[in-house]
Order: sequence, then C-alpha cells, then structure tokens
Amino acid sequence: MRRIDLNCDLGESFGAWSMGQDEAVLAEVSSANIACGFHAGDPDVMRRTVRLAAAHGVAIGAHPSLPDLQGFGRREMSVSADEAQALVLYQIGALSAFAKSSGVRLQHVKPHGALYNMAARDDALACAIAAAVAEFDPELILVGLAGSALLRAGQTAGLAVAAEAFCDRRYRRDGSLTPRREPGAVIHDIEEAVQQGLSIALRGHAVAGDGSPVAIAADTLCIHGDKADAAAFARRLRAGLEQAGVTIAAPVAGARA
Amino acid sequence: MRRIDLNCDLGESFGAWSMGQDEAVLAEVSSANIACGFHAGDPDVMRRTVRLAAAHGVAIGAHPSLPDLQGFGRREMSVSADEAQALVLYQIGALSAFAKSSGVRLQHVKPHGALYNMAARDDALACAIAAAVAEFDPELILVGLAGSALLRAGQTAGLAVAAEAFCDRRYRRDGSLTPRREPGAVIHDIEEAVQQGLSIALRGHAVAGDGSPVAIAADTLCIHGDKADAAAFARRLRAGLEQAGVTIAAPVAGARA
Amino acid sequence: MRRIDLNCDLGESFGAWSMGQDEAVLAEVSSANIACGFHAGDPDVMRRTVRLAAAHGVAIGAHPSLPDLQGFGRREMSVSADEAQALVLYQIGALSAFAKSSGVRLQHVKPHGALYNMAARDDALACAIAAAVAEFDPELILVGLAGSALLRAGQTAGLAVAAEAFCDRRYRRDGSLTPRREPGAVIHDIEEAVQQGLSIALRGHAVAGDGSPVAIAADTLCIHGDKADAAAFARRLRAGLEQAGVTIAAPVAGARA
Amino acid sequence: MRRIDLNCDLGESFGAWSMGQDEAVLAEVSSANIACGFHAGDPDVMRRTVRLAAAHGVAIGAHPSLPDLQGFGRREMSVSADEAQALVLYQIGALSAFAKSSGVRLQHVKPHGALYNMAARDDALACAIAAAVAEFDPELILVGLAGSALLRAGQTAGLAVAAEAFCDRRYRRDGSLTPRREPGAVIHDIEEAVQQGLSIALRGHAVAGDGSPVAIAADTLCIHGDKADAAAFARRLRAGLEQAGVTIAAPVAGARA
Repeated sequence: MRRIDLNCDLGESFGAWSMGQDEAVLAEVSSANIACGFHAGDPDVMRRTVRLAAAHGVAIGAHPSLPDLQGFGRREMSVSADEAQALVLYQIGALSAFAKSSGVRLQHVKPHGALYNMAARDDALACAIAAAVAEFDPELILVGLAGSALLRAGQTAGLAVAAEAFCDRRYRRDGSLTPRREPGAVIHDIEEAVQQGLSIALRGHAVAGDGSPVAIAADTLCIHGDKADAAAFARRLRAGLEQAGVTIAAPVAGARA
Repeated sequence: MRRIDLNCDLGESFGAWSMGQDEAVLAEVSSANIACGFHAGDPDVMRRTVRLAAAHGVAIGAHPSLPDLQGFGRREMSVSADEAQALVLYQIGALSAFAKSSGVRLQHVKPHGALYNMAARDDALACAIAAAVAEFDPELILVGLAGSALLRAGQTAGLAVAAEAFCDRRYRRDGSLTPRREPGAVIHDIEEAVQQGLSIALRGHAVAGDGSPVAIAADTLCIHGDKADAAAFARRLRAGLEQAGVTIAAPVAGARA
Repeated sequence: MRRIDLNCDLGESFGAWSMGQDEAVLAEVSSANIACGFHAGDPDVMRRTVRLAAAHGVAIGAHPSLPDLQGFGRREMSVSADEAQALVLYQIGALSAFAKSSGVRLQHVKPHGALYNMAARDDALACAIAAAVAEFDPELILVGLAGSALLRAGQTAGLAVAAEAFCDRRYRRDGSLTPRREPGAVIHDIEEAVQQGLSIALRGHAVAGDGSPVAIAADTLCIHGDKADAAAFARRLRAGLEQAGVTIAAPVAGARA
Repeated sequence: MRRIDLNCDLGESFGAWSMGQDEAVLAEVSSANIACGFHAGDPDVMRRTVRLAAAHGVAIGAHPSLPDLQGFGRREMSVSADEAQALVLYQIGALSAFAKSSGVRLQHVKPHGALYNMAARDDALACAIAAAVAEFDPELILVGLAGSALLRAGQTAGLAVAAEAFCDRRYRRDGSLTPRREPGAVIHDIEEAVQQGLSIALRGHAVAGDGSPVAIAADTLCIHGDKADAAAFARRLRAGLEQAGVTIAAPVAGARA
C-alpha cells in the first residue's frame, strides 16, 4: 500500500505580522516545518505553532534558515560550512525546547529557502547541515530536494532522509526545478498542481516544461503555506491521494534506516 | 567540609567582536554561564565556548537574556511573563544543541543582566522563567540572586536552585545590591573583592556600605568575566578559598533537591 | 475657518510581511508617519511608502521607535536620554534619505508606540527627542500627545509642535488616555469614534469614561492604520469634518512658530 | 604637487563591544568611512565617531554595508539592485543625521566589505549604489576600488569618484586584488606595506605577486582600522608620504568634477 507525507512550512508569522493559515493547513498535512526565528517565527510564534501542530497530531520538524528576516531567508549568503553547521544546530535546539515543553519530539529537519537551495547543490554545505542534524539527534529525518546533495549527505551521515517533491513547481527534464525567475516556473492553477502531485505520488513522475516525463521519487510533497489558497489546495490534494488509496503519513525514521 | 561554586559569564563575544578572557577564566571557575545570542554570543561563539568549557570540565549553563544586542541585555524591557517564558525556552534550547553536539549536559540556567534583575523582584516574571526551565528539563539548576523572587519561584516549581552572591558589588543592609548608579556600588579593589568573597563563603556574611554585617547564604560566587582582570581575580579568589579548605565545585542538582 | 490634520502610521510592513492598507488610507489623510526600520519598515518598504505618500501629496513624517521589531516598538525599554537622542537622529536621517530621493521634504516627527508613551511623561526623554529633531532640522514639526511632556519639550527647544488626539481611545477626566489594559480603553464602534473625532475638532472636547467633558486642544487626529477598517473610518471622519466646514490639512511649521 | 587621501574605516564598535583605535587613527588620516549600523556602529557609536572625526577635521563619509552584523558585512548576499539602492540610501541618511547634528557635511560614500567587492564587479549593483548616492546628494564623492565597475557607474551617474588602492593587499598582474583565501593575499610586514603605499602614491604602480609591475591610479589609500597596529602603520605611511613631498588631503568633489 502506497504512503506519502504532506509537509508544509508553518509558524512563519513574526511579532505583529501574520502569515499563513496555520490552523487550516494543519488539518490536512502530516508534517509541519516550523520556522526557528532566523527567517520568520519569534519565540512566541514558535511556542504557539508547536502546540498547535502537537494538538493536530502532525509531525514536527525544524525549518532552519540563513539569518535574514528582511529577506525571509530567500537571499543566498556566502556562509561557511562551519557557520552553517552552527546556525542549524542553534535553530534545531531552539525549536526542540518548545517541542519538549509541549511533550512531543522533533521528527525531522528541512532547511528553508536559500539554505535549502544551496544545500541541494553544494556538497560541503550539505555535509555541514547533515552533521548538525546527526549531532543533535541521529534519529531525526533530514528532508531535502529529491536527488539533491543534501539527501546524499544525509545518507552518508547515517540519517534517514525524505525526498521532497513539489506540486506547484515546474520540473526540468533533468529533474531540477525551473528557477523562479524563469517563465512557467510556478504552476498557478490549483487543479494542474493537484494533478502533478498525484502523478508524482502514484506514478513517480512529473511532466517537464518541454513535455517530457521526469522520474521523481518522492517521500513527501510540499504544500506552500504562504499561498492564499494553501488550505484549499492541501484539501484537494489530500482528497485525491486518499481516493487513489494513498495513505497520508509522516515518514518514520526507523522504517527507512 | 565547605564547598562553593565559582561561576562566570562566558561566550560574550559576537561576530568580529571579542569580549572576555574565556580560556583563562575557564581554568579557575566551576560553572560557565554561556550567552545564547540575545545579548551576546552568536552560534559560532556558542559552539566554541561550549567546547572549551567541556574541555575544561566546567559545568555548562544557559545565560538567557532580553533581546537587546546593542544594550548587551542590560536595559530593562516590559516583556510579558508569556514572552519571557518563550524567550528563555528558546535560548536554553539553542544552547542545549551545542551541549549535545559536544556530548555534555546543560547543568544550570542563570538569567542575564536586566532579566536577572527584573526576575529578582518580579514574581510573575520569576515564575515564567522557572516554568521555562522546568519545562525544558526539571533536572536543571536555576541560579539567581540570593534571597530573590527568582529563587523562590524556582523552589516552588520544584527546581534545585543556587543562590548567587557577588564579590565586587557592595551590599546594602537589607541584603540587596547597591544599585550601579550609586557611588560605591562596585568594589574596584581586587583585594577587597577577594575578602568579600571569602567572607561570604566562609562566614556567610558581607559588610554593608554602612558598616553593618549582612547575612548572605550563597551557593555560588560570581566572577565578572567582562572585567580586564577577571582571570587574575578568579585565581586569587580560588587560591584564598582553597587555602581556607573550601572545595570549588559546581552545584549538583541531586544533592540539593 | 477651522482646520485640522489627519495623521496615520504607515509603512509598517516588513520584508515578506504586509500590514495596513497604505494606499487606501493615503487617499484620506493629510500626514503620514512612516516607520523607520526599528519597529517596522525595511528600506524597501520605506522607499515605497515615501513615494506613495509623495504621489498623494500627503505630508511625510518620521515615526521613530525603540529598537524592537518583535514587539513592534510597543514594549517600554529603559533607554537613556542619550541613547534616545541618537536613535531618533538615526531614524529621522534614514527616512530623510528616501524623502530626498523622492524630491520631497520631511515635515514632522512623531515617536512611535512605547517611545511616544514614555516621552509623554518623562521630561528627560522628551527633551532628548526634541533635541534630536531640532539638531536635524529646526523646521520640523514635533507631534505628540496633547498636553504631554513631549510637546512642552518641543516648545522649549523652539520647535513647532502639533498636539495629537485620538478618536478611538477613551479619555480620562484629567485628559490622559485610559490605559489599554483597562476595560473600555478602546472605542471599537466606528460611529462613536467618528463622533469623538468631530467633537474634538469642532468643540475642543471629548467625553471621559465617567461621562464628564474633557477639554482636548488638538492640531491633529490619529487614524490607527493597523485596524482592518482604517480606510473606511478615515473616509467617514473626513466626510464628517468637511461637512462641518473643517479643512483637512497638514500642520505648517511657519504658521505656528 | 602630488596629493593623496588616506582613508580608514572607523566607528566599527557596537554596543558593549569595542573595535579599532579610532582616536589614534584620526590623527593620521584625511578621510573617515563611518559604519552605519548594518555591519557595525550603533547610533551611539555613530554619533561619537562623527563628533570625533569632526573634531579632528577629517572628512566624513558613509560606509554602508549589507545587513549582516554577525558576519561584519563580509559575507556576500544575493540582494537585488533595488534592495541595494534602498539599503545604501537608508544608511547614508542615517549617518547624515549625525553629521547634521555635528554641523558638518558628508563628503563621500564608500561601500563596505562584501558590498564593496560585489560592486567592484557587478554593473547592475554598482549602478544601484551610484544612483543611491546621486539621489541623496550629487556632490558626494563615491569611493571604490581603482578600475572597478563601481567607479565606472559613479562617473556615468555624474558623481565625482575616488579610486582606492591598498597598501597591505597583494595585487595580481591584472590590477585586481589577490583573494583573501589565497596565500600571500595580505602583506603582513608593516615596512613592506608602507613601501607599496609609497610606490602607488609616488610612481603609480605596485608589484604583483608574480613580480611584474601593475599600474594603479589611486586617489586614496586605505588604512585597515581593525588591525592592531593601524595607528602605527598610518603614522609611518603618512611620514613617508610627507617626506616625499606628498600632501595628505581628502578628495574635493569640485576639483574632480
């Protein structure tokens, strides 16, 4: 029987500023990647979000970022591997305190934004992130782009990994994502995005921008929580998956190791 | 046989800026309170400091602060009890990640600067901080000013507590510290400060500014690490204590519970 | 012929986070207080907001705050008078650069949040803020709570001042605002708030919580831009004032000096 | 008669952390590049440094940086040209407020660290920075690496520019600087650095790492203020230049336009 995880970035409010529809999205997903204060999420938001995720029985993960509040962690920065390792450790630790205070465990780590993209292609950075995760807790699952340097580094470090795929991003023939600055990079039509998600989950492939099929082996599908229709999209995708007999569930470290 | 702890604030460098003589001081003290990024200490500094303290066999504690890098956490801020609880949890968690990565345990938490002072007199804030510590790990020792609201809150929360006294601050007749803005608040003469430390450790009292004796029941003496002569002072104090037969050692949670 | 200013806090978005309905509100007000990066408003937001205000012909003012992004500048902090003077200078200067680049002049300065409240009652802080404004440009108008220490300090420093009143805050018999934590502090009903605004502008008084009349001499009425119905409220108030023959216009420094 | 400017980065302390020997260095240089809060320099430090520079009769310039306090502005970040323009405007404006309050004028702008390096090679970024400077005040002099994209952009924008050369960095045959991560990039010997400074000022060339001469047309020589021996080095260089009949003086916008 097939199973797949639905994950979403959550807890991305900050102070007086709100973002996302955390409560509605939590009803649909199986994993929550929670911002740790470097791109979004202050300590109050983190505590609230962890509690909310725990109340929904959703698996909780850290979503560490480069230190860039204004840029929402989306601007690449030339951090050294050592700096990356330290800032990932810091953020996982900070989030873990709220998990402890809510009586739940951290289950995964998924780097955010520019750090995610850089770690997908830069082996040294990927190894530093994997080392941070393994040093903190070797039972944590490392989530990264399917086929990325980050997943390879996680496996080398002895971690369970989860390969992530995107419903609403257009793939290229080689399995990489069409960069956001190029036309057609984002699939705006909900129905089309749902179809791509189903295709990846059920048949293990997507259709590239040039029409050719691309094999995508995914353990988890990403729901973009900052979109206005995130909850509606998640509901549609979940319904489609369940109708096709797919179980929606967070990855389990033991099952994969 | 008498024993007392010597503690010092460490890891208060930040980025390109250096502060303190961490390595020299670590050779003399038994507990290190390590900055957690809110008043000082970036992730790189934290990792380095935890490793250094672990290498010296010094007990490691979190030193959480109000969020005020420019003011070094010394400016009081009207945070709510909920906000205080969340920011203390965040910082303990962040530091704990470096302890995990170095294979050591956090042993205590001592609030920094304005947060320490506010928690010494504000019961609601003190309870929030004690709750944060207890939620993170009920085995942690809470360090605060002898006779303060913070220690009472810690005991109420079921935590082991350690009462702190100062060698280089002038006490008032009622056991409180002479505020820094008043003349004579700080004892600048090393020898006089050492004598006050010995008097507290050996006889349980200091001499107030008006000449009257003040009873001070202390489990730990503070070494101010940002002073130029911190290491020299610590060496003198330690030698004096050991000569008088006092053992210098970190508090033990089990022994006090 | 009567005239009054309508002012609103604007430019309070930050990075990926939006706040307020700046464009709709700018169509109704005569003065914009623009956040300067310490409680809200990054350089991109500041540039955009200044341009927008300039395009609407609305007078532009700096809205400096304590350094507290997470707390939105609403948490009191014990800054010294010297620190306050420097941080106000910094923020006025930063905003002035965007005014220069848009070819417009700064017309006023209104402190934000906790800084506004502290400066209403603390003479030393009020003098420091007034000195910062006068050092930057003695033609700037200092906006503060009617009857406050800040306005007195501004007059002593030789600045033109504008006394601010609130439509949606309940006054106390002595002319001070009912603190937000007390019941009835905020007037939630739009119509009632419009009536208080009209009463202040036309008759120079409001009705206190205990039913007694309170004299309020106001040069400017505050529109709270972070409310969901800010633009609708501003439209109603403006229509009411114009119908009563009141001209809506920014204060003029020359006319008051 | 030959003349050259000696410039130094100053005001790079922050809060409780000290850096540099500003007072000693100000006695030797003709231009001060003052940090604006993004990589170093809080409002208090900025005010103090501007006053000190004004008291020494040293020309005052803004030293804007990428927003990276922990990295001291030395880590490259993928900011857009629009973001760079806004953050440079913000920082020039902030510093100008302290110049106004000290009764002096800003004379130049020199980007800091990673922003300086990126602007030396990236035309779009260089144009954005030049536009920010020109929008703020077209009389300001733009300081950048000799032969860089930044200086070309400044000239295109109608600004006076000053070409900077380094005494203590090894040049490559093509006139670029040997990257810091390569061996021999930094000239540590004071005497050798003084000789390179004299050679550039007097003969217009340096000797590359491979022994070949490199033409360097410089209007200003950089003193690295964060070095322990900055003041001693500046004194030696200044004495050598004066002995050779070179006048040390800040560039003048009018003279170059």
